[in-house]
Amino acid sequence: MPRAKKNIYDNVTPRIVKVIPLGGLEQIGMNMTVFEYGQSLIVVDCGLAFPGDNMPGIDFVLPDITYLKENQDRIKGFFFTHGHEDHIGAVPYVLKEVNAPLYGTRLTMALIESKLEEHEMKDIAEIHVVKFGDCIEAGDFSVEFIRINHSIPDACALALRSPAGTILHTGDFKVDFSPIVGETADLQRLAEIGREEGVLALLSDSTNALRPGYTPSEQMVRETFDSIFSTYKENRILVATFASNLNRVQLVIDSAAKFGRKVAIEGRSMVNAIEIARNLGYIRFPENVLVDIETVNNYPDSEMCILMTGSQGEAMAALSRVANGQHRKISISPSDTVVFSSSPIPGNEKAVSDLINEIAKRGAQVQNKATHVSGHACEEELKLIYALTNPLYAVPVHGEFRHRQANAKIAETMSVQKDHIILINSGDILELSKDGAAVTGEVPHGGVMVDGLGIGDVGNIVLRDRQNLAEEGIIIVAMAVQRSTGQLLSGPELISRGFVYVRESVDLMEGARKAAEEAAERCLGMKMTDWGRIKTEVREALGSYVWRTVQRNPVIIPIILEVS
Amino acid sequence: MPRAKKNIYDNVTPRIVKVIPLGGLEQIGMNMTVFEYGQSLIVVDCGLAFPGDNMPGIDFVLPDITYLKENQDRIKGFFFTHGHEDHIGAVPYVLKEVNAPLYGTRLTMALIESKLEEHEMKDIAEIHVVKFGDCIEAGDFSVEFIRINHSIPDACALALRSPAGTILHTGDFKVDFSPIVGETADLQRLAEIGREEGVLALLSDSTNALRPGYTPSEQMVRETFDSIFSTYKENRILVATFASNLNRVQLVIDSAAKFGRKVAIEGRSMVNAIEIARNLGYIRFPENVLVDIETVNNYPDSEMCILMTGSQGEAMAALSRVANGQHRKISISPSDTVVFSSSPIPGNEKAVSDLINEIAKRGAQVQNKATHVSGHACEEELKLIYALTNPLYAVPVHGEFRHRQANAKIAETMSVQKDHIILINSGDILELSKDGAAVTGEVPHGGVMVDGLGIGDVGNIVLRDRQNLAEEGIIIVAMAVQRSTGQLLSGPELISRGFVYVRESVDLMEGARKAAEEAAERCLGMKMTDWGRIKTEVREALGSYVWRTVQRNPVIIPIILEVS
Repeated sequence: MPRAKKNIYDNVTPRIVKVIPLGGLEQIGMNMTVFEYGQSLIVVDCGLAFPGDNMPGIDFVLPDITYLKENQDRIKGFFFTHGHEDHIGAVPYVLKEVNAPLYGTRLTMALIESKLEEHEMKDIAEIHVVKFGDCIEAGDFSVEFIRINHSIPDACALALRSPAGTILHTGDFKVDFSPIVGETADLQRLAEIGREEGVLALLSDSTNALRPGYTPSEQMVRETFDSIFSTYKENRILVATFASNLNRVQLVIDSAAKFGRKVAIEGRSMVNAIEIARNLGYIRFPENVLVDIETVNNYPDSEMCILMTGSQGEAMAALSRVANGQHRKISISPSDTVVFSSSPIPGNEKAVSDLINEIAKRGAQVQNKATHVSGHACEEELKLIYALTNPLYAVPVHGEFRHRQANAKIAETMSVQKDHIILINSGDILELSKDGAAVTGEVPHGGVMVDGLGIGDVGNIVLRDRQNLAEEGIIIVAMAVQRSTGQLLSGPELISRGFVYVRESVDLMEGARKAAEEAAERCLGMKMTDWGRIKTEVREALGSYVWRTVQRNPVIIPIILEVS
Repeated sequence: MPRAKKNIYDNVTPRIVKVIPLGGLEQIGMNMTVFEYGQSLIVVDCGLAFPGDNMPGIDFVLPDITYLKENQDRIKGFFFTHGHEDHIGAVPYVLKEVNAPLYGTRLTMALIESKLEEHEMKDIAEIHVVKFGDCIEAGDFSVEFIRINHSIPDACALALRSPAGTILHTGDFKVDFSPIVGETADLQRLAEIGREEGVLALLSDSTNALRPGYTPSEQMVRETFDSIFSTYKENRILVATFASNLNRVQLVIDSAAKFGRKVAIEGRSMVNAIEIARNLGYIRFPENVLVDIETVNNYPDSEMCILMTGSQGEAMAALSRVANGQHRKISISPSDTVVFSSSPIPGNEKAVSDLINEIAKRGAQVQNKATHVSGHACEEELKLIYALTNPLYAVPVHGEFRHRQANAKIAETMSVQKDHIILINSGDILELSKDGAAVTGEVPHGGVMVDGLGIGDVGNIVLRDRQNLAEEGIIIVAMAVQRSTGQLLSGPELISRGFVYVRESVDLMEGARKAAEEAAERCLGMKMTDWGRIKTEVREALGSYVWRTVQRNPVIIPIILEVS
């Protein structure tokens, strides 16, 4: 099959552009990709990831930006596809280390600004608001913002031009011919770029690549909501969704207003996001529809709709607190209908199921059928983008390995040459030119865990300790020893946490204490003065006693205080 | 609508039978229900539950059998519906406390026997093997075993007769008109009981009550396997499923043999279950099909099928070890096709997804479409049982609240009177007679956690400690103080686990140590001798320093060793 772009590239000397993802390829979230041509670096997105079950106590995870720090003088700008946390959440942390101009559409930049304000960093940031169609010059790159659809308004695909050719990055996207907010993706422009200048590489969103067909339009959800509002006329209606799904938020407001209801908002992140979007005109409330959450109980059930966070069963979010009777203003009653307008994110299924049970037990109706459509493209939409852009290379991004693998198979059916379909990992340096593609090296990469104010001070060793503590508990055995004589002056005292309920296990704890004492006395009797060795002996004696008795392996910490 | 059974019951004096579930209604697993008439108690099933994410370190959970212990002289027998862990797993633990004859079909009892052997308890158990159709007299009860379909052979529904009437308990069931092992459920007998003697109450399996339609026959899975074996002729095929899904195991053996493959088994629980079932003739291997796992690498890929555990992504099960390269004999290669013949149990979705990614990264094919059907009845099958048995009362069992609620709605559509549909909780004493039904009290109930050899010594306090330790880590601050003078002789020494990586947080740890030291010196300087109060002061000083510095809340344990 002849490729128009072949002719285009045949006239120029082969030039190389590098693609270096710093995150987003092994896990959902932490999307951040470096593009490099000559001395110019640009960065697309700057997101965080939420911690997995294996990261107890961690608040969120940032990408490792060592490579950016090493090359900070060459960074020409950060470019954002849309305003979701997994694409903008790391901005304040990254900007503290490497500063460069920030470019994005209006809503995206407003959400970033609000983050920077929270971190008192607004002054140091150079914020540029762009419009669809704008082209930003950034060193050897020029970046064009192209309208696309997603679950938040103002989402963009980016055309990243360099002398090596044009790379098209879809961002998170779907194609919605009847979006709730804004217009349909600019498919004409994508086609034009594909046809006129040729696309060197397409980096496209793999999240739903395993799903056949098309992602339905958000309008489908509107029909469901209209039907819920018209069926449950007498009930109060509670709707839980993602704070960041602003298109859904608008849809619920519209539908509630249509059926004569007031709308109240609950959940800090949702209140914030809606306020920002409303100030910019991306969310519109018909007159007299929005009411303060403090007044919800002043209206009859039939006139009230409460929009809230917590659709993922998050313990501290609004809906969980409401369902567990811990909410100041709102409690569930049999006259409520609760709508889950979202799908559980993988890993949250059990929490969501538990939450539904809790709500059902309180007598409320639960609706979770056809109340959500995805914000990501399915198989046929991905094909559409391949057809429009006809890329030389396909580099599936955004998604777990099996999703990217499925996207790779789709690329193959769309006539991308098999050896031009490239699955890369975070940290890979992918060099692309019209003549070839290769992973030529690796940069530092991985997740940097944030716990409270600490960034990166919790690593794998600390996490492993946390896991052990959680599964087995801890026994501390403390004693004081006279340095000169080697005499045991006090202890050993045993203290445990997460091991057994001590009051009901007196014999076990006393047996353990004796085992530790015998070991210590034995060592000291032999005039041992290497405290490290004594600790080891005590740990082993105590550990083996506990294992023999109850077959458990608590973390054991011997402490020897030396008294002179 | 006239009800035949009304006439039947109208002739007798109202008598009362009690139904007391000890588990199985709030969570999946731990199925155990007491039935009581006059001085006679019988128990149906005796299962365990697997721990949730909120129970770190717990091996499994047993039902609270206080009520059985208080009434042990009146227990006439344990009756089992089938041989799955959530129905028989607690037998050895319960039998140590209360002994009574055990009744069940052949495979079920063989699986129980194997458990009792492991616990060296076979001698104390009175084991009775029954056949379908047998009626066992047990005090005022007589119990009939009725053939039903499920994912393990020899599954039964039970007709529990007492002078108060007949209670029909379905156990876990589906209706399969073409089962792989055994015959179709004895629908005629269910109809006969419904028509001739009338059913006072139907206790039916709610697991799939939210799913419309019928659960497909296991034969559907056979077609999928035949198609996989004929498509991937050159590949080695690895099949992961539940060890306890013996019908699936037989199906895979049949299909593998049909396509000229050997079958090897990997995973201790699967090897055990298959051995027991094979000895009794419930699993049949065509001649020369079964090969030892040690010889798997002696056969070409095209002739090998390995059946294994680990379809739920369990970290220690066969498939995870294989996928992570930790298995002694088997490793994944691009010439493998791995079949997940199961659905993820709620809560396991993420683990399964991670495992699939791991396998895909190693280049193997992953098949998980249409390779599983449920062992539980969907909506239309539940209707069928209501239609056949026409019960006076419906008591949905087995399933979370929302599943039982859905089963209740089904009962309503099948003309069970609304006030005759009863949702009960574990521990409830439900009194049933032809004249009425009421929950009249409660018995002790709940989960007893097993950790190693300890049964019940880990309770909510210990679990909360484990959770805190996991999320925040621990700091121990130890010091030795002279009793007479109140002088600080040694320390404070700080030791932490799961908090920060100490080598990279020297300043933080030294700051924390100083905060503790100052607090201790201040207290001792004031001649304070109440060690408890000093500990509190030290804990607060240290805690507030840490919070100010990194905004975390580690568990802080001050230890004061008194030296005379």
